[in-house]
Amino acid sequence: MERIEQHASFGGRQEVWKHASAVLGTEARVGVYLPPAALAGVACPVLYWLSGLTCTEQNFITKAGAQQHAAQHGLILVAPDTSPRGEEVANDAAYDLGQGAGFYLNATQAPWAPHYRMEDYVVEELPAVVERWFTTSARRGIFGHSMGGHGALTLALRHPGRYASVSAFSPIVAPSQVPWGQKAFAAYLGDDRTAWAAHDAVALVAGAQERLPLLVDQGEADAFRAAQLKPELLRAACDAAGHPLALNLRPGYDHSYYFIASFIGEHVAHHARALRG
Amino acid sequence: MERIEQHASFGGRQEVWKHASAVLGTEARVGVYLPPAALAGVACPVLYWLSGLTCTEQNFITKAGAQQHAAQHGLILVAPDTSPRGEEVANDAAYDLGQGAGFYLNATQAPWAPHYRMEDYVVEELPAVVERWFTTSARRGIFGHSMGGHGALTLALRHPGRYASVSAFSPIVAPSQVPWGQKAFAAYLGDDRTAWAAHDAVALVAGAQERLPLLVDQGEADAFRAAQLKPELLRAACDAAGHPLALNLRPGYDHSYYFIASFIGEHVAHHARALRG
Repeated sequence: MERIEQHASFGGRQEVWKHASAVLGTEARVGVYLPPAALAGVACPVLYWLSGLTCTEQNFITKAGAQQHAAQHGLILVAPDTSPRGEEVANDAAYDLGQGAGFYLNATQAPWAPHYRMEDYVVEELPAVVERWFTTSARRGIFGHSMGGHGALTLALRHPGRYASVSAFSPIVAPSQVPWGQKAFAAYLGDDRTAWAAHDAVALVAGAQERLPLLVDQGEADAFRAAQLKPELLRAACDAAGHPLALNLRPGYDHSYYFIASFIGEHVAHHARALRG
Repeated sequence: MERIEQHASFGGRQEVWKHASAVLGTEARVGVYLPPAALAGVACPVLYWLSGLTCTEQNFITKAGAQQHAAQHGLILVAPDTSPRGEEVANDAAYDLGQGAGFYLNATQAPWAPHYRMEDYVVEELPAVVERWFTTSARRGIFGHSMGGHGALTLALRHPGRYASVSAFSPIVAPSQVPWGQKAFAAYLGDDRTAWAAHDAVALVAGAQERLPLLVDQGEADAFRAAQLKPELLRAACDAAGHPLALNLRPGYDHSYYFIASFIGEHVAHHARALRG
């Protein structure tokens, strides 16, 4: 772990670290916000943020305005990159495949399989690194935006007991049913639709072993809502399964970080109730 | 005026407009945040933000986290670009001269004079446009960062009665005495140091007609503090002149928007007291 940025922020410190990831087989960058309590030596819970298509570790830490709330609630925020990166890593000219578009799964298909292992990275390696390097409590939460909202929901549903709280902004709730997900899943997982269902929040809710409450915010004016996000599919799946869901449709809000910033305080408070309770 | 971006934000709306500026002789872009009160038709005061070197109208609106506070206090935020832009506008390869580095003055020297008129733009043309286009009250405040902190202080000091409140983050308080300012002033204003003094906050404080209180926040860990910012010169000038100054030195904080975001709420509240009082 090498620290490459540090900035005082709301009495705590926003840092960026890079480390050699054994899982990804590349160097990986990650934003870490340490609240004042963490700087004072208190073991704090860790809340993981997963960003959307095209993002790096920078978008969330510069634009979401989450630090003030993490400072208030005593949470460490960890924001990884959205894919492996580097010249040796397979890529695609499109913004929605390859670097910047890891979809938080372990690819099984060539040329993606060797490096594109964002599920193992986010669920296993990154927490191990974070919990070794910083003073943390045992509790973890996870949230994210768009592709990262898909990541947060699916990783929480696929790994019962691993996260004490989960939430999402504008998530891709049913990647198997929308163009972004179909393109990525066909490339990373191949044509077998049963493999797709294992990474699809709407499909996973039906068989969830754990009824972890889902908090989802969705802008009603989001240009991607009807074609790519389809929050109504998550509502129907949760209703059918009896899975607890708080779905907030926000009139006028779009897909941007202006939307995220407007409601990030509510999401951090949601996680704080579970993580510090 | 043509609106090129709009995003719901904290119950209000963050917009970006472009317009043909007669003063600059170019198209100009400006960020405008309309708080919920403005959307409801209430005439709101306008708080102008001036950004620092290299910035456009985007930096403040995406990174400072000011909207939540403007929403709470019912202030319109207006954030212009930092210089004229375009192929027809003189430029320099350096980051601290030419486009992105207008220094909030009217240049008198070639090749800058025809377009580099940011003082007239910010003080006259932009408020006229804003007050014609939006429903505003008669009160204006001004604040900014680094080069924009210099802009806020000097424009308020040079135009008594025009601003009801002023504040700055990490301002260049004595441009005549530091490399950034000396380079820009020599280029834009020529070698006559009396012309420089008219755009130097430390020089202006001595003869200020109006004792408008100055609020300044400065990070103690700011890498530019000792060579370019020199807040102690402003303290000495205000002490000598009996000019009211609240100078907050913030241990650990640097020159970044992480610093600005941490204290923007206090600055917006300072302006709100003057603008809504």
